[in-house]
Amino acid sequence: MPEFFKVVEAEEVLEIIKKFAPAKVERVHCEDACGRILARNVHSPENLPHFPRSTMDGFAVRSEDTYGASEGLPLMLNVTGRVIMGKACDMAVKPGEAIAITTGGMLPEGADSVIMEEYCHVLDEETIEITKAVTPWENVLRPGEDVKKGEELFVRGHRLRFQDAGLLAAVGIEDVEVFQKPRVAIVSTGDEIVAPGTGSVPPGKVRDVNGPSILARLKYLGYPTKHLGIVPDDEVKLKALCEEALFGQSDSDVLLLSGGSSIGMRDFTLKVISELPDSKILFHGIAIKPGKPAIFATSGAKAIWGLPGHPVSSMITLLFFVEPFLGYLEGSYTDTARKTTRAILGVNIPSVHGRLDFVRVKLNEGENGRLVAIPVYGKSAMVSTMTRADGLVAVPTHSEGLDRGKEVEVLLF
Amino acid sequence: MPEFFKVVEAEEVLEIIKKFAPAKVERVHCEDACGRILARNVHSPENLPHFPRSTMDGFAVRSEDTYGASEGLPLMLNVTGRVIMGKACDMAVKPGEAIAITTGGMLPEGADSVIMEEYCHVLDEETIEITKAVTPWENVLRPGEDVKKGEELFVRGHRLRFQDAGLLAAVGIEDVEVFQKPRVAIVSTGDEIVAPGTGSVPPGKVRDVNGPSILARLKYLGYPTKHLGIVPDDEVKLKALCEEALFGQSDSDVLLLSGGSSIGMRDFTLKVISELPDSKILFHGIAIKPGKPAIFATSGAKAIWGLPGHPVSSMITLLFFVEPFLGYLEGSYTDTARKTTRAILGVNIPSVHGRLDFVRVKLNEGENGRLVAIPVYGKSAMVSTMTRADGLVAVPTHSEGLDRGKEVEVLLF
Repeated sequence: MPEFFKVVEAEEVLEIIKKFAPAKVERVHCEDACGRILARNVHSPENLPHFPRSTMDGFAVRSEDTYGASEGLPLMLNVTGRVIMGKACDMAVKPGEAIAITTGGMLPEGADSVIMEEYCHVLDEETIEITKAVTPWENVLRPGEDVKKGEELFVRGHRLRFQDAGLLAAVGIEDVEVFQKPRVAIVSTGDEIVAPGTGSVPPGKVRDVNGPSILARLKYLGYPTKHLGIVPDDEVKLKALCEEALFGQSDSDVLLLSGGSSIGMRDFTLKVISELPDSKILFHGIAIKPGKPAIFATSGAKAIWGLPGHPVSSMITLLFFVEPFLGYLEGSYTDTARKTTRAILGVNIPSVHGRLDFVRVKLNEGENGRLVAIPVYGKSAMVSTMTRADGLVAVPTHSEGLDRGKEVEVLLF
Repeated sequence: MPEFFKVVEAEEVLEIIKKFAPAKVERVHCEDACGRILARNVHSPENLPHFPRSTMDGFAVRSEDTYGASEGLPLMLNVTGRVIMGKACDMAVKPGEAIAITTGGMLPEGADSVIMEEYCHVLDEETIEITKAVTPWENVLRPGEDVKKGEELFVRGHRLRFQDAGLLAAVGIEDVEVFQKPRVAIVSTGDEIVAPGTGSVPPGKVRDVNGPSILARLKYLGYPTKHLGIVPDDEVKLKALCEEALFGQSDSDVLLLSGGSSIGMRDFTLKVISELPDSKILFHGIAIKPGKPAIFATSGAKAIWGLPGHPVSSMITLLFFVEPFLGYLEGSYTDTARKTTRAILGVNIPSVHGRLDFVRVKLNEGENGRLVAIPVYGKSAMVSTMTRADGLVAVPTHSEGLDRGKEVEVLLF
């Protein structure tokens, strides 16, 4: 077993994971592409709109026929017809004429603008009086005015939003190439761990907490994730399952090993990882609390995280390091799953210089309606300290604590 | 067709939709329950942990045997064995004795605390010298200390998070009862609308923008959503599809009608809705811009939204009214899908008193690294004004505009 214990600061971890980039591209239907990252620039195959289109209800006119019209001096135009929605008009607007049109209708030949119906007084079926002048192309979208044929709509690396799906539909693009979301496999380790479905758990054994919580989170974030099971502290079995996860039928991009990342007699994790093909251990230990004993390694193009067995440490390592890492593998990390709020610290929080501390806090409404963050009471090993918390406050690496009354950012769960 | 045109303010809409509550409950596996709202209180069926459990690596001891130990006056204890992880220890700690234990191990009989290994000096295989006293239950989780049997873990209405899934797994709860997410059907209407897949669109016709963008958004938010197709402006066909959507095989909880919500000759929407069984039109028109002609109605326990045909109006109505409504149907609305930032307005934004305006803005980095919001240039009818925007700024109903330099909240897309 390797003897070294390479502890890095949180900021170094973020620098390391930032260097990972997506490898695989897939084509998905636009209706399923929200939140996905484009793998190619997208250009419009056509003009939008592809015909001059009215943006108002009113009358299609030649703008020059309207010049001088006002409340005091209305002008008269002959109404020669009506544009049928969804059809090209088979008439043209000639000098002194107008054709009725509704929003979205196709402007007839000859017309260059639409005068809104509120400025038109219908005198009889064939005559209107207009009280306002319009300028050329007023209340009209010209062909290509929204999007030009060949125009770059979105660039590689753009995270697609629902309005983007709408624009793509408008120009007839039904699917797009995006980066694949990494496939994740979870393996829980430890002689003491049994499956959550175990009815009566013998003394000394405990149900798996980390596997189910990681699985729930990653499925929620849309990652194709599988829990491959629980292995006891047995080097041969652990190695076989790691190989199956990364190179077998599962063919996962990322393997998360839960538990077994503390140095100790029972921990074969490092040895097993170091024996995987083309393996490289990038660090073993992050200077954070809770969560220190996290391992990060690669085996060729695959990545392996050894997460702490301690549930709270495992959850925090997942949120702050594994999630951004998966984000970079997906093409971009923009923190979209995170929500924060600002609160006043209700107590002093001491910390140690050189270590990033995450403090579980409960938010209460204080004076003036401001939120007050109070650390959650209870031993650090208790899972319920996470479920009773509303969020986390980070005490920076190079700080010796935060003072009562200070405004802090709280990462909400 | 009903003659009335009931326009309500945005705040009234939010009051109306707040009154809707979830109707159906389903049981889901905890691994799929993140983000879902509990329909029942959940109590723990057992103690967590169910045995006294060490939270540190060290030695299980009787605390009274350690009193008085210090760096200057170490005490000696006899080591009689080692706790095997995952098993109950078959030995007891007797006075003057210690048993080696690792984090997560089961405390042997007789011991009431664990002394951390850093305060233990191993003299030989059977003897340690300790340099610190421990108090009863130090470094130990007692049975039920994390969670007590029968304790209320989560209450009805709680939105489940990944740490909650972990705690539920720990106490052996594999699935939970949550409120069903409403099933949504989308119908696009309009003589001019063709499907996005249409290769060559004739003059006067346009591809559906609203159907695909709404579908993409609601699928992203996890709602079971179907697009049932496009109907021309034909009362009989529209009625048949509405009935199919709400009461036929689709059996949707919510129907979103895209287009056809402006008063006009071509709009049968209100008439069709008013003919649905037990129908009630709650409002027709919201005092917002863009987005005014939105309809909201119920037919028994089902809900119908008539969304504006104008794509930008449709998108804004979806974000600000339909999404919160779906949230209440799901058991809670907590804005989790929304992210905001603060920015300085780069220009004056005029507005009209009595109307809530949504301004599409682009964010640029200004002096001192502060974000500056600048309205997106382009005619309001252009879909690309939404895709070029980074977010929206709301100008409150009872305001006549916002001044340049003011700090505003920007809803990010």
